[in-house]
Amino acid sequence: MGKVIFNGHIVDRKKALIHIEDRGFQFGDGIYEVIRVYNGMPFTLKEHIDRLYSSAQKIYLEIPYSQQEIMDLIINLLEQENASTCNLYLQISRGVVPRNHVIPKTASPTFVSYLMPGDRPVNLMKIGGKAVITEDLRWHYCDIKSISLLGAVLAKKKATDAGCLEAILHRSGIITEGSSTNVWIVQDGKLFTHPADQFILNGITRQKVISLLAINQLPFAETSFTVEQLQRADEVFLTSTTMEIIPIVEVDGVKIGSGTPGDITRKLQTLFEKEIEQECGPF
Amino acid sequence: MGKVIFNGHIVDRKKALIHIEDRGFQFGDGIYEVIRVYNGMPFTLKEHIDRLYSSAQKIYLEIPYSQQEIMDLIINLLEQENASTCNLYLQISRGVVPRNHVIPKTASPTFVSYLMPGDRPVNLMKIGGKAVITEDLRWHYCDIKSISLLGAVLAKKKATDAGCLEAILHRSGIITEGSSTNVWIVQDGKLFTHPADQFILNGITRQKVISLLAINQLPFAETSFTVEQLQRADEVFLTSTTMEIIPIVEVDGVKIGSGTPGDITRKLQTLFEKEIEQECGPF
Repeated sequence: MGKVIFNGHIVDRKKALIHIEDRGFQFGDGIYEVIRVYNGMPFTLKEHIDRLYSSAQKIYLEIPYSQQEIMDLIINLLEQENASTCNLYLQISRGVVPRNHVIPKTASPTFVSYLMPGDRPVNLMKIGGKAVITEDLRWHYCDIKSISLLGAVLAKKKATDAGCLEAILHRSGIITEGSSTNVWIVQDGKLFTHPADQFILNGITRQKVISLLAINQLPFAETSFTVEQLQRADEVFLTSTTMEIIPIVEVDGVKIGSGTPGDITRKLQTLFEKEIEQECGPF
Repeated sequence: MGKVIFNGHIVDRKKALIHIEDRGFQFGDGIYEVIRVYNGMPFTLKEHIDRLYSSAQKIYLEIPYSQQEIMDLIINLLEQENASTCNLYLQISRGVVPRNHVIPKTASPTFVSYLMPGDRPVNLMKIGGKAVITEDLRWHYCDIKSISLLGAVLAKKKATDAGCLEAILHRSGIITEGSSTNVWIVQDGKLFTHPADQFILNGITRQKVISLLAINQLPFAETSFTVEQLQRADEVFLTSTTMEIIPIVEVDGVKIGSGTPGDITRKLQTLFEKEIEQECGPF
């Protein structure tokens, strides 16, 4: 994994160095995507690239490549790296200009993309993980997948300090999402997740799960729920690009349901795996 | 201005390049300071360095230098650059590690500092500037001077789009601060500014003004005020390291008071100038 797409070209990693006045480094002024690669094939690539352009638009950043150019570069990188199952990271920052809060009229965005190791967390998918609940202190532009991530980093720390996988966040008692995941509950056979507004990132895995629920006629609602509703839910699970669907079996030290992954969560895992296999081939 | 303090050494700017996996570039995971330099002398240097360490502690970042080492490096840089009146930028990010939201147990922070041009905005100080009021959509850790600044960048854009100097922010109708400044009002001879809690950065200029108010027995309160109170205030001004004390004479197209800088604002400008001259010599 020694190659990097750097400003439109594939170069050796040691040549991909950033200027100290890159606004990605000084202002967190950029956007990113993490794309899952199975069997060397990017999963839901188009959806991720669409979201990248959407994030860019929301921060007034004009990406100097077409979607097709970016996808071609990614496919080229995957081939050159002889990729199997891993993660592809992609970041576009506003570029190098003398430091000033004001968005520059002309700047040449810095585009970086490379592969990161990443096996499927199969054990975690099977036995589930633990979470803590903590206040959502992040900004109110959570629909933008920006690199100004320190709020998420500080939330994740609350999870790891408690020996947990994830920090589930709430604003005034309403669950929004995890520090790097979307959060779902199952109550009396019906699924709930926070609507895709400014308080959550509309995860690609979240969107894929919603389409699976619709196709399979499973009842669900994009309706927010409270901390208490989550605590007494029959099932809780997280969705994310890198982790797929992870059952949460304990929150703040208290078991969710029976304390084991629930039936609907496991059914969704199976349906999601089929989606992956359909797009990227069998595991 | 071709020199950079880079990880403890002064190097040529072209050699100060950042790895793509620096957490400053991927997570906005770092802190910074901007220190004003007058006549080659850093103003309120110790106060800025104290705040740098305070910000570092709040994000669980251990700075691998003593305060004295950093101050010595800064003095050395100012000498090598033959500095006059300018700004010194200083940033510490968490360093280079494989990308993961989890704060790494071991990482070697990246320390960058260099000089930026910056004359005193004397005309603006004299005639004042315009501002817009907009919702504060930033995170709730505004007391940390972090480089996850995209929220502030997007706020500043609302000001520049309206042809204004600054965006004054409010949360639920309560004024917090500007996108890169602290905000003050004068009403019936008494000064008000938001208390130094998690919703504002406790500006060094803000603190210096507070001490000047106390010394000069001018009535003031660290008490928040509403959008309406600001709109009908006798005087409004901003404080910041790079701009000192700037009268705001128009907000959202409506004049503040008589639409010219107020007496108390001008008095404070004079008192503040004396502070600068005392520490850095006459202009």
